[in-house]
Amino acid sequence: MPQVQDAAYRVLVDQLRDRDVEVDRVETALKAQQIETPSWGYGNTGTRFMVFKEQGAARDSHERLADAAQVHRLTGVCPSVAIHIPWDEVDDYDALKAAAAALGVRIGAVNPNVFQDYEYKYGSLGNANPAYRRKALDHILHCVDIMTAVDSPVLSLWFADGTDYPGQGDFRRRKGWFEEGLAEVYRALPERTRMLIEYKFFEPAFYHTDIADWGMAYAFARRLGPKAQVLVDLGHHPSGTNIPHIVAFLIDEGKLGGFHFNDRKYADDDLTTGSVNPYEIFLIFCELVAAANDPSVAPDIAYMVDQSHITKPKIEAMLQTVMNIQTAYAKALLVDRAALQAAQEAEDTILCERLLQEAFNTDVTPLLAKVRAAMGCDPDPIMAHRASGYQETIRRERAGELQGARSWG
Amino acid sequence: MPQVQDAAYRVLVDQLRDRDVEVDRVETALKAQQIETPSWGYGNTGTRFMVFKEQGAARDSHERLADAAQVHRLTGVCPSVAIHIPWDEVDDYDALKAAAAALGVRIGAVNPNVFQDYEYKYGSLGNANPAYRRKALDHILHCVDIMTAVDSPVLSLWFADGTDYPGQGDFRRRKGWFEEGLAEVYRALPERTRMLIEYKFFEPAFYHTDIADWGMAYAFARRLGPKAQVLVDLGHHPSGTNIPHIVAFLIDEGKLGGFHFNDRKYADDDLTTGSVNPYEIFLIFCELVAAANDPSVAPDIAYMVDQSHITKPKIEAMLQTVMNIQTAYAKALLVDRAALQAAQEAEDTILCERLLQEAFNTDVTPLLAKVRAAMGCDPDPIMAHRASGYQETIRRERAGELQGARSWG
Amino acid sequence: MPQVQDAAYRVLVDQLRDRDVEVDRVETALKAQQIETPSWGYGNTGTRFMVFKEQGAARDSHERLADAAQVHRLTGVCPSVAIHIPWDEVDDYDALKAAAAALGVRIGAVNPNVFQDYEYKYGSLGNANPAYRRKALDHILHCVDIMTAVDSPVLSLWFADGTDYPGQGDFRRRKGWFEEGLAEVYRALPERTRMLIEYKFFEPAFYHTDIADWGMAYAFARRLGPKAQVLVDLGHHPSGTNIPHIVAFLIDEGKLGGFHFNDRKYADDDLTTGSVNPYEIFLIFCELVAAANDPSVAPDIAYMVDQSHITKPKIEAMLQTVMNIQTAYAKALLVDRAALQAAQEAEDTILCERLLQEAFNTDVTPLLAKVRAAMGCDPDPIMAHRASGYQETIRRERAGELQGARSWG
Amino acid sequence: MPQVQDAAYRVLVDQLRDRDVEVDRVETALKAQQIETPSWGYGNTGTRFMVFKEQGAARDSHERLADAAQVHRLTGVCPSVAIHIPWDEVDDYDALKAAAAALGVRIGAVNPNVFQDYEYKYGSLGNANPAYRRKALDHILHCVDIMTAVDSPVLSLWFADGTDYPGQGDFRRRKGWFEEGLAEVYRALPERTRMLIEYKFFEPAFYHTDIADWGMAYAFARRLGPKAQVLVDLGHHPSGTNIPHIVAFLIDEGKLGGFHFNDRKYADDDLTTGSVNPYEIFLIFCELVAAANDPSVAPDIAYMVDQSHITKPKIEAMLQTVMNIQTAYAKALLVDRAALQAAQEAEDTILCERLLQEAFNTDVTPLLAKVRAAMGCDPDPIMAHRASGYQETIRRERAGELQGARSWG
Repeated sequence: MPQVQDAAYRVLVDQLRDRDVEVDRVETALKAQQIETPSWGYGNTGTRFMVFKEQGAARDSHERLADAAQVHRLTGVCPSVAIHIPWDEVDDYDALKAAAAALGVRIGAVNPNVFQDYEYKYGSLGNANPAYRRKALDHILHCVDIMTAVDSPVLSLWFADGTDYPGQGDFRRRKGWFEEGLAEVYRALPERTRMLIEYKFFEPAFYHTDIADWGMAYAFARRLGPKAQVLVDLGHHPSGTNIPHIVAFLIDEGKLGGFHFNDRKYADDDLTTGSVNPYEIFLIFCELVAAANDPSVAPDIAYMVDQSHITKPKIEAMLQTVMNIQTAYAKALLVDRAALQAAQEAEDTILCERLLQEAFNTDVTPLLAKVRAAMGCDPDPIMAHRASGYQETIRRERAGELQGARSWG
Repeated sequence: MPQVQDAAYRVLVDQLRDRDVEVDRVETALKAQQIETPSWGYGNTGTRFMVFKEQGAARDSHERLADAAQVHRLTGVCPSVAIHIPWDEVDDYDALKAAAAALGVRIGAVNPNVFQDYEYKYGSLGNANPAYRRKALDHILHCVDIMTAVDSPVLSLWFADGTDYPGQGDFRRRKGWFEEGLAEVYRALPERTRMLIEYKFFEPAFYHTDIADWGMAYAFARRLGPKAQVLVDLGHHPSGTNIPHIVAFLIDEGKLGGFHFNDRKYADDDLTTGSVNPYEIFLIFCELVAAANDPSVAPDIAYMVDQSHITKPKIEAMLQTVMNIQTAYAKALLVDRAALQAAQEAEDTILCERLLQEAFNTDVTPLLAKVRAAMGCDPDPIMAHRASGYQETIRRERAGELQGARSWG
Repeated sequence: MPQVQDAAYRVLVDQLRDRDVEVDRVETALKAQQIETPSWGYGNTGTRFMVFKEQGAARDSHERLADAAQVHRLTGVCPSVAIHIPWDEVDDYDALKAAAAALGVRIGAVNPNVFQDYEYKYGSLGNANPAYRRKALDHILHCVDIMTAVDSPVLSLWFADGTDYPGQGDFRRRKGWFEEGLAEVYRALPERTRMLIEYKFFEPAFYHTDIADWGMAYAFARRLGPKAQVLVDLGHHPSGTNIPHIVAFLIDEGKLGGFHFNDRKYADDDLTTGSVNPYEIFLIFCELVAAANDPSVAPDIAYMVDQSHITKPKIEAMLQTVMNIQTAYAKALLVDRAALQAAQEAEDTILCERLLQEAFNTDVTPLLAKVRAAMGCDPDPIMAHRASGYQETIRRERAGELQGARSWG
Repeated sequence: MPQVQDAAYRVLVDQLRDRDVEVDRVETALKAQQIETPSWGYGNTGTRFMVFKEQGAARDSHERLADAAQVHRLTGVCPSVAIHIPWDEVDDYDALKAAAAALGVRIGAVNPNVFQDYEYKYGSLGNANPAYRRKALDHILHCVDIMTAVDSPVLSLWFADGTDYPGQGDFRRRKGWFEEGLAEVYRALPERTRMLIEYKFFEPAFYHTDIADWGMAYAFARRLGPKAQVLVDLGHHPSGTNIPHIVAFLIDEGKLGGFHFNDRKYADDDLTTGSVNPYEIFLIFCELVAAANDPSVAPDIAYMVDQSHITKPKIEAMLQTVMNIQTAYAKALLVDRAALQAAQEAEDTILCERLLQEAFNTDVTPLLAKVRAAMGCDPDPIMAHRASGYQETIRRERAGELQGARSWG
């Protein structure tokens, strides 16, 4: 088997050289990729109907960091972990930072939670009640303090704010409250950090969401200034949306700040990235690769995962996610961009598409195996994880009843 | 004010007579309407992100029956209550039946729950594990026993079964298991009862749902026999679906068994019926009125509500729902069907549409006020409820902390 | 019948006064409403499968103006007509302006066509070929000249530009070409005129559209300056989009320039406004009424129709459209906005919604009949048109074979 | 280059043997695949906005057959051509059959057109006018006669019937008329032929389509009998539909008769198969491969293409389509189905998905090159076509002005 893989790698390199691909540069790029995993991706989650608890799922920040460290150990490309406050609230953030470092990872984006307390039933920064707006704002400012404590470069803002019924809220007044609140947060941001504003088409509010699409997030971010950018969550668009186009548009405006990777079939399903339409995530990476080679834009992008693993084991699902993202990136790096531009100018649609499909249809498994080996990782992180005994260990350590919990209290 | 309402009623009657509407027949039909409310609509529910608890929300079957009785008392058209097992599981179903009767209501459809136990993580009747299929089947057969105990005419079947990822399940094997299971349930059905098979486009499974659309529910029901029919939940279709057409098609096939009323903007939002597109629910009732007047089809339809009231008080939301359904029905009763058929045959699209719009644009508030008064109810059930002191009473009786509960355990 | 209508009007006025509605102000507002109809709405159109020609459909600009004048004569609220170049190209624009004036109407928005010539197969302002971009730009600048000639206040820009396949075009380069082209147009705009930038989710390009959503149109318009605004076509959004929210957001940004009214069930169906979801168009007008009363925003909005009447007679369809828009506006004027704001602040979602529904459920037919009579129009413009003999006259004058034309050449 | 390809093939074979794939069986299956191309795919088509004519596009049946023969010559897997009546109407069908044979192809499915004549404006078999229903029926029966004349095994029925506005048609009456008409067609079907009933979610009718989904086509087909089956067009579903599931369900019911292959981003875009979501077409083929190996179902399926090539050259687009379908089929043949079933039973979702992804991520280019060479075809049919001079020849032969035609007459 390794012999076959080795032969496959050599043939692939020959094929890529025939296509004028600089294999060394591709491998260097793959080694430099960084994907941030979220602490909340290691705990139990579910749908509104049911949470199926997993034995050994992480129960606190330290267990979540440990699981994230396992993912980094196996993949080599996940050195940072996003935290969610208050789920990851601790008394001593220095200790949390040190714990992460001891595990070989660091804290990444800080995510305030302004949807879980009773006061947020009708909104947070968009709430008609000024006391509740203040509460939300204070929580976010607290998170800004945490950023400093843990050396986090990114404040990642998602608002569940919205309404369920026509008339329930005044769209323009709520917009004004958001502008006020965001401006106060912006002013508090530490040097060399950014705030990323996430948008979402619907859910948990069903009639309207205050920041419903990239255009609204963009309008807020533009008014705030250069430290405010837009966060693109792949599941937060209506069906049929061309996400690569939005990505390119935001890059061109200097306003693409980061991603929440996942995939979806109809709504915000929070499925494994690349599980429903792997070609779409490849096309997104094609835009990112093009931009990375273009000094006129030079975006600084936070690559983060945001998924809800319901019917898959948490750590394995995260490993699969990371591997799918690496696959998409590797394929995008193989596109012959000079030939693509020439075909575009020649109006040769067939050839344009073939150039993308040729890259997409290339089996990059041998390439990624090579890169992983060079980074001291197993070519197959999932099987390496299964063989590692880690899962058995945490199952014993974190013993608990195997049961479900009805979501509705 | 009452004087104005009285004048409005007299003018409306004159207008309707000008349009050859038999007002007496319309009022008789409105008095005969029956809408079943669900016991679970009176308790706390939420989204996957949060359950915002309401003070005074019903906590057990008896409280749920009491609240349903309040809705019936105020509207006069909600004499039955659907129950959900095990949420409404009791030791003594005779006592439950008697309790309902004492409150002035009766038990309606029995809804088994085969999605909440750990064994159902990968399906119930469609589970690859025969022991879990058996467990689900036994639970449903237990519900059939409950039907007999409480004199329920309807077994209402919704299955959360499905998969999140390609390959996770074998579509055809799962279909075979469903056929087997449903056949066993069918054989156990008491005389003069029906089983209604619900379908759903997606959620909580995101890649595929075993009974994903009306066609699948219909295929199962047809093979089972006349006591099996299809249940149409208004929120279980993709955007853009013409639900009135599906309703008409099923009526024509003799397979429309009932409804779960609600409304939605994008997904299965479980919003108040008629809150997003009131014209659509009117058009559905136009099909129902047409069928009711057509001896060749004569459908027997269970009108049931299935909503999740998150940002509205439970009882008020139910009252508003019932009132919206009455409004839609009242307007549909005003359509001049003979003129409509003539306009259809004359290819006069403009006139066809005007005949519907004229009925829809009629303000039926005075008509419904008259009907409610004749039934001993207040013309405005919501304001009557607010004035009744009921809410205050149950808030005190069912005191509890006002708080939220994070959905994810 | 008139007696009944008179009684209905008097009762309605009493009801509205009970609700503190200033009926005089409502009637004044309705009389001041202006809706622009499009010249192309009076000619034959169709789907990609078939164009079913209508006998008597207008064949040239003068016939189209004549039909538009008939709509204005019957409704009193359609004094201007949008033109489309080259469909309405004439040698002498002074003569066209005079012809319009003689018919009692005036020229409204000028719409360039940059999608119909062979050179636009791969785009107009976004075309990779500079000669084709220049051609498109020259055509638009020609339309700017026409604006001056006919005293048009609005340049209405819709671009079919986009791609059908991944890779076919370079999103960011195309964006750059659009910015260049639009800037040149902007500089040429006459004083006291505006350019409105329309966006569209998809079609005729299927993979990506260069101006795909309001956010992109907004970004272009913002960079250009105050004379550039966004045009909202009701059919150009994915399913489930909250259009009233977008309308409010754009108003707040000072960037809502106008509407193309129509309705749709799934895609850009170009159906009669209000025919699929009349509640949605009402909710849009609620935002417009709220903004009109708010001196902090004071939008200047062009209300234009853009529909494709396939199975309805052109003039009747336009009359029905105008009447539906009047109905939506009339109902929106009835909303008690002070009570609504109070209910919003009290978190009384039920009451918020009731305030909207009460207005929506009001039958405004008697009110509109009164307003029409006061403007010298028949209370029922469609039936007045049928009785007028106009249709018979144009059918004879514009005799032609009754036939279909296959769309695909 | 050929040396590299040869090496790639040898490595691939080694890899597949490691996965227990029987490479010979896969190659045999690929050689036996047959994909029918449509005569109308070689002529000019467009959107409702514009038809961009292509120089050299086929203008009549003989030119269309010639182009189809070129596709078969280059791919070896397209021996039959679907015809569309009256677009392919000829005086002498024996001559047409002979012409096809002389070109190396044969006539496949016969497609009646009951949407293009003026009488069909309000429907064909569902028209309220009995004379128009009769006309449509006579045309279809004429097509049944043509089937006999050209030895066609399949009558392929697509109906544009539907309505644009609520009330325009009576759903149940129209259903009855369809049942009558289809029954008459069914009775006329020659021995050993089938009728395939296509469904479509929307367009060209926008409010309702008489055969709107697979369930309606299935209900009609079931009632008619075994010679009636359902035709699945990949573009005729709402966004988010799980087509592989529908395919599996229909196979299980014995009612899957055939496909119209294409791809879509939002609506019925008629794009190149596999151009938007190549994973989806792979997953469809996974169901077909599973069924082909299952004697309990043994479906007989017509694989047909139905696309509208607007911005791609017709013949190249067809070649690309065929190649994409071959790629999807080849990958589906590599799935280890025994391992998949074991993983499903073990509830190992991760492994299930990996087994599919491993097959999908395999680069089957060397395998298809080998198969094509063995069939006497060039490994790259598109480049072979470009090199063949065929396009130049037909461009000269079929000279015409290069121009556009506005769709709306």
